[in-house]
Amino acid sequence: MIKAGIIGATGYAGEQLAWFLYKHPNVNVDFYASHNYAGMTYNDIYNNFNTYINDICIDMETAISKLSNINVLFIALPHGKSFKITEKALSLGVKVIDLGADFRLKSKEEYEQWYNVKHESIDLLSSAVYGLTELNREAIRGCNLLSNPGCYPTATILALTPLLKNNIIDIQSIIVDAKSGVSGAGRSANIGSLFTECNESIKAYAVASHRHTPEIEQELSKSSNGNDIKICFTPHLVPMNRGILSTCYASLTKECTAEELITLYRDFYNDNFFIKILDGLPETRWVKGSNLCHIGIKVDKRTNRVIVLSAIDNLIKGAAGQAVQNMNIMFGLDETAGLEIIAMAP
Amino acid sequence: MIKAGIIGATGYAGEQLAWFLYKHPNVNVDFYASHNYAGMTYNDIYNNFNTYINDICIDMETAISKLSNINVLFIALPHGKSFKITEKALSLGVKVIDLGADFRLKSKEEYEQWYNVKHESIDLLSSAVYGLTELNREAIRGCNLLSNPGCYPTATILALTPLLKNNIIDIQSIIVDAKSGVSGAGRSANIGSLFTECNESIKAYAVASHRHTPEIEQELSKSSNGNDIKICFTPHLVPMNRGILSTCYASLTKECTAEELITLYRDFYNDNFFIKILDGLPETRWVKGSNLCHIGIKVDKRTNRVIVLSAIDNLIKGAAGQAVQNMNIMFGLDETAGLEIIAMAP
Amino acid sequence: MIKAGIIGATGYAGEQLAWFLYKHPNVNVDFYASHNYAGMTYNDIYNNFNTYINDICIDMETAISKLSNINVLFIALPHGKSFKITEKALSLGVKVIDLGADFRLKSKEEYEQWYNVKHESIDLLSSAVYGLTELNREAIRGCNLLSNPGCYPTATILALTPLLKNNIIDIQSIIVDAKSGVSGAGRSANIGSLFTECNESIKAYAVASHRHTPEIEQELSKSSNGNDIKICFTPHLVPMNRGILSTCYASLTKECTAEELITLYRDFYNDNFFIKILDGLPETRWVKGSNLCHIGIKVDKRTNRVIVLSAIDNLIKGAAGQAVQNMNIMFGLDETAGLEIIAMAP
Amino acid sequence: MIKAGIIGATGYAGEQLAWFLYKHPNVNVDFYASHNYAGMTYNDIYNNFNTYINDICIDMETAISKLSNINVLFIALPHGKSFKITEKALSLGVKVIDLGADFRLKSKEEYEQWYNVKHESIDLLSSAVYGLTELNREAIRGCNLLSNPGCYPTATILALTPLLKNNIIDIQSIIVDAKSGVSGAGRSANIGSLFTECNESIKAYAVASHRHTPEIEQELSKSSNGNDIKICFTPHLVPMNRGILSTCYASLTKECTAEELITLYRDFYNDNFFIKILDGLPETRWVKGSNLCHIGIKVDKRTNRVIVLSAIDNLIKGAAGQAVQNMNIMFGLDETAGLEIIAMAP
Repeated sequence: MIKAGIIGATGYAGEQLAWFLYKHPNVNVDFYASHNYAGMTYNDIYNNFNTYINDICIDMETAISKLSNINVLFIALPHGKSFKITEKALSLGVKVIDLGADFRLKSKEEYEQWYNVKHESIDLLSSAVYGLTELNREAIRGCNLLSNPGCYPTATILALTPLLKNNIIDIQSIIVDAKSGVSGAGRSANIGSLFTECNESIKAYAVASHRHTPEIEQELSKSSNGNDIKICFTPHLVPMNRGILSTCYASLTKECTAEELITLYRDFYNDNFFIKILDGLPETRWVKGSNLCHIGIKVDKRTNRVIVLSAIDNLIKGAAGQAVQNMNIMFGLDETAGLEIIAMAP
Repeated sequence: MIKAGIIGATGYAGEQLAWFLYKHPNVNVDFYASHNYAGMTYNDIYNNFNTYINDICIDMETAISKLSNINVLFIALPHGKSFKITEKALSLGVKVIDLGADFRLKSKEEYEQWYNVKHESIDLLSSAVYGLTELNREAIRGCNLLSNPGCYPTATILALTPLLKNNIIDIQSIIVDAKSGVSGAGRSANIGSLFTECNESIKAYAVASHRHTPEIEQELSKSSNGNDIKICFTPHLVPMNRGILSTCYASLTKECTAEELITLYRDFYNDNFFIKILDGLPETRWVKGSNLCHIGIKVDKRTNRVIVLSAIDNLIKGAAGQAVQNMNIMFGLDETAGLEIIAMAP
Repeated sequence: MIKAGIIGATGYAGEQLAWFLYKHPNVNVDFYASHNYAGMTYNDIYNNFNTYINDICIDMETAISKLSNINVLFIALPHGKSFKITEKALSLGVKVIDLGADFRLKSKEEYEQWYNVKHESIDLLSSAVYGLTELNREAIRGCNLLSNPGCYPTATILALTPLLKNNIIDIQSIIVDAKSGVSGAGRSANIGSLFTECNESIKAYAVASHRHTPEIEQELSKSSNGNDIKICFTPHLVPMNRGILSTCYASLTKECTAEELITLYRDFYNDNFFIKILDGLPETRWVKGSNLCHIGIKVDKRTNRVIVLSAIDNLIKGAAGQAVQNMNIMFGLDETAGLEIIAMAP
Repeated sequence: MIKAGIIGATGYAGEQLAWFLYKHPNVNVDFYASHNYAGMTYNDIYNNFNTYINDICIDMETAISKLSNINVLFIALPHGKSFKITEKALSLGVKVIDLGADFRLKSKEEYEQWYNVKHESIDLLSSAVYGLTELNREAIRGCNLLSNPGCYPTATILALTPLLKNNIIDIQSIIVDAKSGVSGAGRSANIGSLFTECNESIKAYAVASHRHTPEIEQELSKSSNGNDIKICFTPHLVPMNRGILSTCYASLTKECTAEELITLYRDFYNDNFFIKILDGLPETRWVKGSNLCHIGIKVDKRTNRVIVLSAIDNLIKGAAGQAVQNMNIMFGLDETAGLEIIAMAP
């Protein structure tokens, strides 16, 4: 059995991770660490685990003292908080899967500019592997430091990569209009996340300034023959718990039908269990609770544009599920182990 | 492998059944029958099953012709529609699990009075076993016709039975104020079930006249030394997809503390995996997506009443999950097979 | 024009008050005071007032210095915070309408027991008038200190008073199962009020211990020939922004039909513009955004109980609307002035 | 007093119209006509009008017979149904305000292509005035046949017109990603509009094929010096009752800052009461229940694009409210008469 520890276990991504690891056939969780809830029993915070997870949450110090007991450390902390613990864990031979943003951008400068904190582990940037599983599986297999993608980047990169790889869109024309459920804002007590402030409304936020922008651009550029991709990215907040829908627009550089593009996408993602190319349009409800990404493709002949829509569960394929998927690969397990769950409707 | 058929596979209970049976380690589904969607591919109706369930829905006639292929038939039809198919299946040696109301009431007269249709299979009433698993496990083991409980009755009977068995409440004082998510209304195109008609509102309905009343009373009476229990039952519609919360009130005939009652309930439900007696209060979100029933107990000393609150997922423990639980018992499997799922939060 | 001040103007009740007073034909608001937002422009906090209310919120100290400019002070503060400012305002001849709980209970002891703070203005308790308008209109007319009812008490007292006045229920049998939207929890940044924690779930809270219990009992007792009414009260949290539905149960001491009771209620509330006795059942959506109370009545012959259901908008008839209604009476205006708004559907 | 009739009075737009006209100081409603509910009392369908609107809905035939009693006819029917009644009303000297699509497109061919029905009143197309009030006020003043804009077009045209009039965007670069609440789907009993099918999900629909596309293009072209504007338009369904957010993208042809554009927009919409140019970003909740349009503007310097976001209440500024605004102008009333309502929060 793989022994795992979770840092930041009481946020929503951490809780979703606990959910998957609890049932994972090859993993035992050694500890649940939490800044705010150290000393509390896990299932008193999340009653869905009543009688299942009775562990007492530990604090960061205690977690550090237990690193030598584990094989893999999952970190689900706000940005700027993962540097020390990551270095410590790696030095003890513990593999690290970081669900936060600290090792996603290869450029220290970009990180510091967009996140507004100093990067304290520059040496690790080159060895950190960006864990968008379907696009990076070989590098993931051997890595010790896995940087798990953000939720918007996961949906968006999966939607756009086949177009860029096939060189059929104007790379300056990409617009991404994304919509997320409220769990994306985390479990902090902010007035803006209150039920009464989010319910019955939709808004855009962080227009032209969201931190996932450089992450998306970095990965899309890799798929574009060395081109430096810049996108226009607008995230929106939707009154639902979970789900991301990424509506991606680009101008076609050659004539294609939607049917041809669907075939192209099916070929591209052929062997990937968690990617489903639809004949129709995705809806977040059909992937909610699963590690799946549903992708739909339409062509607007009148304006010669392609519209690719991708739907994921932001806490699963956009966070904890993909982290487990990556762990499976890093430890030589079946990629789908512990992740074979289908969305429940309604 | 057990071979199963589902009649009414495209309603919400049927779909939830398909969900559990798809992953069940001991079951293969032989057919999905649907009145409205015969001829359509299952995953075109429910896109969560995309690439998983590609079967074409069949009609009732075809389903009847396939009865000899299967070991168990699940029926999820509106009341009054199960008589013929049940008789036919039983005559072929197929075990039947009926999720509808047709075999729940032992009295033909009560059935006809509350449901306003003629009962056409009176002979089967005595052999049908009421499948509230935790209270009826032995009878379920050997039965051929299992009548699966309604959603409100499941939550309510589990909440009240320990009090009645222990003879500590005034049996004329029982009031049940229950709240359900909208999936309880089914997947019919009614104006009253539109998003815009249900959202941002709560209402009671069928006050003092809901059809689940005699079912609850029949089963509570069994636990009350031959007393004829009558309850006052008020269902409410809540703007959420899933979940039932049953708030049950009764006057105590002896002094007890909440702590004593919690102990009494834990003793009563001791060996039952799916029943969790909480120290605090249940919330439907902690059981959503699971086959669990969470129960909380409070005493109002000022008015000498006990308030028992139970929460279930109406489509799982209140329908498809309990049906699978009963199937497991009927076929000698582990009672929890295929049902080990924990609610996802948020 | 009446000059008004609002203390606690940036909570939900305060904001709703600002909404009504902005349009009120006889009122000008002199200041908006806020503990947390002093110094901020009102419409930066609530963008619905963009270009309408550009006032800068002031702090409590400044508010006190402006008391002599105004005729009426509305206070919407947490309990225990209204004592000093109320005394000060009254001493300056300013009428006070307190939306909080500090002057609702006539008994200092009850107040201190249920609210767990010392009452610091005992002398005002006898002169404070409980502002459930329809039941107390004459006393309201001449009063200087108006204690505006709680939201649950408004719905519940309106539902039960006709039964008690007519002496047709067993006064020991009253059970109140109430359901509220999330705005009842206020605009504080609590984790329990997050969208992701409230959405898709229902729960009871403060079972047998909610602070509105003694308030309801005090007022019901007044309508019951000197009987000391005790009720069993269970509030629930419902995933919607606004609305309270109070489902009230009592045993009938004489035989009545629902039709007879509907007539009795219509006679009782005959001249009251804001109370509507329905033929059917109330739903909170039909009163949302209005100062109305919809009441429906059913009789459960099988158990000889009456079920009365009342629906209000918790922020309007349950707070700011009723406060304005009371102000109208205190200042000799038409009771409905500024309050003639109908719920919008959907 | 203006005498009005409403055809299609029991759909959501019709009901919102009834709401505004009931309180309008200069209007009496002579009849409410409904295809599905003829013979029913209006407030039995919409209980918010309990004791307010007790009229019995009439059928189309009866409505026609009453045309000579009225001054203005509001029509809120599905497309293809307004031709006959419009001709009849106009011939009797009744002004017509059509909330449907039948007279919006100037080109018979475009209408027939996008709506797939034959246009039966071609002669009226030239005299019908497109009622986007802020852009067309003079023509509205004298017209007899007012074609009220669609909901998406209202939000989108208001957002984009100042850019086109000022000639500062690449007209081939326009992408409109719009999001609507479920009331936009109307009050028909479709499975796709059920609570359980819409809640907790977001989806796009009618990608590159929505019928509002040519309407938006027609009006934008008018503001673009005779250019033939083509847009890429993607509507989305959001789990909320009301509201449209239109996120509009275009490439700038000259360098501008957001601040400069905000000034430009404020100058452009200077005298228009219902248009508010924000410093920040709009949210649908701040306009819900009002006739306002909130507009926010951002510039993405990295990709040289402008993002304009507009929020309206789809049933008000996007339907009934704008219809009343237009009626006010057509009858020489104050444009804001009966429309001075502010959004309620929360």
